[in-house]
Amino acid sequence: MAKINSHYKDVSEGYFFLETTKRAKAFTDSHPGVELLKLGIGNTTEPIVPAVLEGLKRGVEKLGSAETYTGYGDEQGDTRLRGAIAEWYAGRKVSVEPAEVFVSDGAKPDCANISSIFSDESVVAIGDPVYPVYRDSNIIAGKRVVYMPALEENGFIPEPPREPRQGRGEHVDLIFLCSPNNPTGTVITREQLKTFVEYALEHKAIIVFDAAYSEYIRDAALPKSIYEIEGAKQCAIEIQSLSKAAGFTGVRLGWTIVPKELVAEDASTGTLNQMWNRRQTTMFNGASNIAQEGGLAVLSPEGQRQTHEQIDYYMENARIIREGLTKAGYTVFGGVHAPYIWLKCPSGLTSWQFFDQLLEKAHVIATPGSGFGDRGEGYMRVSAYGHRENIERAVRSISENMRV
Amino acid sequence: MAKINSHYKDVSEGYFFLETTKRAKAFTDSHPGVELLKLGIGNTTEPIVPAVLEGLKRGVEKLGSAETYTGYGDEQGDTRLRGAIAEWYAGRKVSVEPAEVFVSDGAKPDCANISSIFSDESVVAIGDPVYPVYRDSNIIAGKRVVYMPALEENGFIPEPPREPRQGRGEHVDLIFLCSPNNPTGTVITREQLKTFVEYALEHKAIIVFDAAYSEYIRDAALPKSIYEIEGAKQCAIEIQSLSKAAGFTGVRLGWTIVPKELVAEDASTGTLNQMWNRRQTTMFNGASNIAQEGGLAVLSPEGQRQTHEQIDYYMENARIIREGLTKAGYTVFGGVHAPYIWLKCPSGLTSWQFFDQLLEKAHVIATPGSGFGDRGEGYMRVSAYGHRENIERAVRSISENMRV
Repeated sequence: MAKINSHYKDVSEGYFFLETTKRAKAFTDSHPGVELLKLGIGNTTEPIVPAVLEGLKRGVEKLGSAETYTGYGDEQGDTRLRGAIAEWYAGRKVSVEPAEVFVSDGAKPDCANISSIFSDESVVAIGDPVYPVYRDSNIIAGKRVVYMPALEENGFIPEPPREPRQGRGEHVDLIFLCSPNNPTGTVITREQLKTFVEYALEHKAIIVFDAAYSEYIRDAALPKSIYEIEGAKQCAIEIQSLSKAAGFTGVRLGWTIVPKELVAEDASTGTLNQMWNRRQTTMFNGASNIAQEGGLAVLSPEGQRQTHEQIDYYMENARIIREGLTKAGYTVFGGVHAPYIWLKCPSGLTSWQFFDQLLEKAHVIATPGSGFGDRGEGYMRVSAYGHRENIERAVRSISENMRV
Repeated sequence: MAKINSHYKDVSEGYFFLETTKRAKAFTDSHPGVELLKLGIGNTTEPIVPAVLEGLKRGVEKLGSAETYTGYGDEQGDTRLRGAIAEWYAGRKVSVEPAEVFVSDGAKPDCANISSIFSDESVVAIGDPVYPVYRDSNIIAGKRVVYMPALEENGFIPEPPREPRQGRGEHVDLIFLCSPNNPTGTVITREQLKTFVEYALEHKAIIVFDAAYSEYIRDAALPKSIYEIEGAKQCAIEIQSLSKAAGFTGVRLGWTIVPKELVAEDASTGTLNQMWNRRQTTMFNGASNIAQEGGLAVLSPEGQRQTHEQIDYYMENARIIREGLTKAGYTVFGGVHAPYIWLKCPSGLTSWQFFDQLLEKAHVIATPGSGFGDRGEGYMRVSAYGHRENIERAVRSISENMRV
């Protein structure tokens, strides 16, 4: 009889986010006519900017004539796009070669699939709370996951794993970092990131740095790429996405940087760059050529200008939420260089208790922090994605109905 | 130190197809002015048909306004598309529920990723020769691969694996089948497919049926879907693609059918449908919404008419190749319900020896059969993808310069 991968037993069934929908539905069913106000959206809501829309259209039009039609492209991505990405990094003083760029259909698959090139005996350290994909994908692969707590006392930026000799620690092989962070909306500083790079170099661990929200950083002192830290090209893989940077959540485009300097423990298998190349050429067939034309447009000067303007719009939403909630008496974190605000539930309420209060008293939906890990208990992720008017109504409703 | 997945050592480095390019380049470098004629393209060459191009354009335009913009969709695919796919199967008398359809970015990733839900202790049977992705993805996962020979004496359609008690066999858990076949261009008959389904039901094995070339079948007696065989919904997963059906090789869209009837050995993990759902929601973020709009257009009546007309064009190429090569004295197989012709190298030449002769004497490129497995040695895959004029010139050049 065909045997199944029993590690699937160890991952939750994704009921968590379904439960928010279920509770919201139960409320509207019993309160007909009530409109719910959403602060729980982890998804872009504004249309694609004109310069990028033109790129996508060009991508479609090229497929309509024999002279410009293209089928399979390189699994690693269009040469022009890989070059443009390398130049984009150069523009922020980071040196990346086109051959180190692997274009993909988004950060989520890459975050999950990168596990493939590492031994299933690896120990993987991830933040808690954090984007659940790092945890679930590594558990499915049979790897052991340990947690780095992100707490109020460390500003929600975890510290590198403890070394075994310091007690209660153990050697880790892979470290997943996400900055700006989903869900806490906090950003790692250059100094903090440096301690991770030093740790990784000393312990020969590999850092997987998820920079999907980098374009929300508004302070030049904060690192947008891990490669801004000296030595990172010897120990870090960086994953990027145009989902939140250009509204490509549905279009699907991202990339992963695997520096040529990264070597595997066993030279006979080659560098990690060669291994990821082998993984991608075997198991992936390239991102959509239409999306890649769009990606080129995003990285053009006009595309960068227009997409950054759109991010300013979301960041104004974040400001309205942050200031409105603070004025209403809540304690909030993040949301200054990220589209997420991390709200501390008042009066020691659990995330689900406060979810229910928000729903019943303010008709607002936010995301229970406990869905992102045990250390998310007692917090809510409040999202700045949404149309301005809806964001304002939601904040007003909390202020009027739930002042602390 | 981070440990790597050592199974990568057991897969070849993809040098094979690079070698064809290398030899071609060496020849043109030493023979300036000579134009090479390609019969080695495993990629669509004709532009997207108008009805489908309109669908793709609609997909882009929707992203440009706030009213119709969409971000993340369901990882399983757009509800409309899942419904349209179920109806498409109904049109060929196969019953598939929308909830059994998982839309993806193509057949290659699905063929490779499906391995994730099965135990790494599984034994996997694949044809030889065959599309190398089945082999390499399962080896990377640490699964054991056994081969089902596809030889001239069985018409290149393998028989089900032997049972252990018959000797030289062993129990297999997973069986990969591809029909119409890449590379041999042969098609499994209803009777032959029935023996596989019966074998799988008896031995509780799971068949993964790759139907990516089904639209090239021109004989209603031949099965386009494994679900045309009674009992297949209890033992088979089917993978489909619009790459070769609609020229979507670069656009990226496919789907996998995981019937609800398929149960795992251990009920606590749920059905295979639930497990694949868990895999996709954790590690995939949906196919591009633009590609999915295009997919809806492909499945529309006009889209079906136009794409089938385009396939007729490729099939006319296949006829020209088949008849031309036969007239020139070659023995060929396949190419009647598939875009590939399987040519037997004359005079006992190896695939690479004949590759060199074709290159030097006829200036034609074809694909050495040995690249698809040991049993492909002594054959060449000749492809019907290409513009008519180039196909005709290549066949004429072989006839004039390499008559057997």
